[in-house]
Amino acid sequence: MPRPYVHELRVRYGECDPQGIVFNANYLLYFDVVFTELWREAVGPWQEMVERGYDAVVAEANLRFRSPARFDDVLALQARISDLGTTSITTEIDVVRDGAVLVQGRLRHVCVEVRTWGKTPLPDWIRDGLSRFAL
Amino acid sequence: MPRPYVHELRVRYGECDPQGIVFNANYLLYFDVVFTELWREAVGPWQEMVERGYDAVVAEANLRFRSPARFDDVLALQARISDLGTTSITTEIDVVRDGAVLVQGRLRHVCVEVRTWGKTPLPDWIRDGLSRFAL
Amino acid sequence: MPRPYVHELRVRYGECDPQGIVFNANYLLYFDVVFTELWREAVGPWQEMVERGYDAVVAEANLRFRSPARFDDVLALQARISDLGTTSITTEIDVVRDGAVLVQGRLRHVCVEVRTWGKTPLPDWIRDGLSRFAL
Amino acid sequence: MPRPYVHELRVRYGECDPQGIVFNANYLLYFDVVFTELWREAVGPWQEMVERGYDAVVAEANLRFRSPARFDDVLALQARISDLGTTSITTEIDVVRDGAVLVQGRLRHVCVEVRTWGKTPLPDWIRDGLSRFAL
Repeated sequence: MPRPYVHELRVRYGECDPQGIVFNANYLLYFDVVFTELWREAVGPWQEMVERGYDAVVAEANLRFRSPARFDDVLALQARISDLGTTSITTEIDVVRDGAVLVQGRLRHVCVEVRTWGKTPLPDWIRDGLSRFAL
Repeated sequence: MPRPYVHELRVRYGECDPQGIVFNANYLLYFDVVFTELWREAVGPWQEMVERGYDAVVAEANLRFRSPARFDDVLALQARISDLGTTSITTEIDVVRDGAVLVQGRLRHVCVEVRTWGKTPLPDWIRDGLSRFAL
Repeated sequence: MPRPYVHELRVRYGECDPQGIVFNANYLLYFDVVFTELWREAVGPWQEMVERGYDAVVAEANLRFRSPARFDDVLALQARISDLGTTSITTEIDVVRDGAVLVQGRLRHVCVEVRTWGKTPLPDWIRDGLSRFAL
Repeated sequence: MPRPYVHELRVRYGECDPQGIVFNANYLLYFDVVFTELWREAVGPWQEMVERGYDAVVAEANLRFRSPARFDDVLALQARISDLGTTSITTEIDVVRDGAVLVQGRLRHVCVEVRTWGKTPLPDWIRDGLSRFAL
């Protein structure tokens, strides 16, 4: 099994709610950050893909909240590509603090053509890049 | 089947991303808004529950993105309680614009005691209030 | 002195921080909402302006925080145009709860041409519309 | 003149708006991040101060937007304490990309006692720590 792509970030004060914990919506923001960074490592900067005529949109997102993260925590976002379909990419993301998984997420992106926003097969240069982080 | 609880809101500019559409994380923010409003109608203001020693935390969230919403769109958030467990509440939420479902969501909340944050059975005054919007 | 344009909104849970109050950045989000609504009333929907070739960008923002707003508060955002320059619009915004001013803000927008993003004089149809809310 | 405290961050996709630029409210979020990091370097982790009975709240914020930042930009947030009053701290923040100042900000924080939230003089251990980044 390949190692996951890992991106670390520190929880910002404004991302926490009156319960003192990261507000649930902000995990989707974190997932987007680690996916962008995985993409940079695997394929290149996101905007380069857009300039080449492709974009990726989120079709599905699933989150399980096991323990809360708090202000100032340093979180490791661990991402693995669990499925590379013809037009779609499924990514599993664990939010980890000190070895404990706080939140588990799964995103399904669909590859689209920039002009029409219609679904399109992943080109080889994207597929080849991502396969390095694929199960 | 009972009618869903419906809350309308208008998409804010700052909630949209460079694709010109509502950024995916913001739907969880919208879900929280409609759940809070359903709660107000069914049980009372959220803070009253907290003062009585109970809180509810999100344990699971699932979202399917079918079509994008855009800046200035008026969205109807339609919420139904699909399951009332001993300690948990499952809510189905449709994000609707002009009769079309753009996003489908499901939240599972768990009832906790405010002091210990431990799981606790839903008291009757919460269960009875919510049952009105339950399938 | 003309009456201000007033827009009411309810504070969302995710907009509050661990101090239990609205996180300061979110007031700029609120200011954008009331400015958009004032614009709708005075000139028309924001996107119609963009389609006619004009946009407005924020050049300056000032905020004074006097008292905190909290989750579930209903706030009245009161906006007045305090200056209509050749290319700029200055708006004073009070955030009011139960008659008390919690936050005072001032925004200066600059009118730009959509294609070049260069500064451009306010066209008459914008100026005339806004003058109704101008001091 | 002392060197500013500098914190770098990369612009997230969800922080940008349909104009393709960082939405204005998010600069206040960035200011909070650099202030927290300056505090960590100068005084210690924010929560340690809170546990010792002190907190700091934003009383005033001013922002000038000169050029837009975009998705994926790496920004240097440069902060200097420009005034250390009896109870207040004024911080000047420049948002810099490739040597160009995009946004200029100024925050005024007030030191408060945690229990009463009343204004209180800055204790020496805070004042001494901050003086290192003070003009």
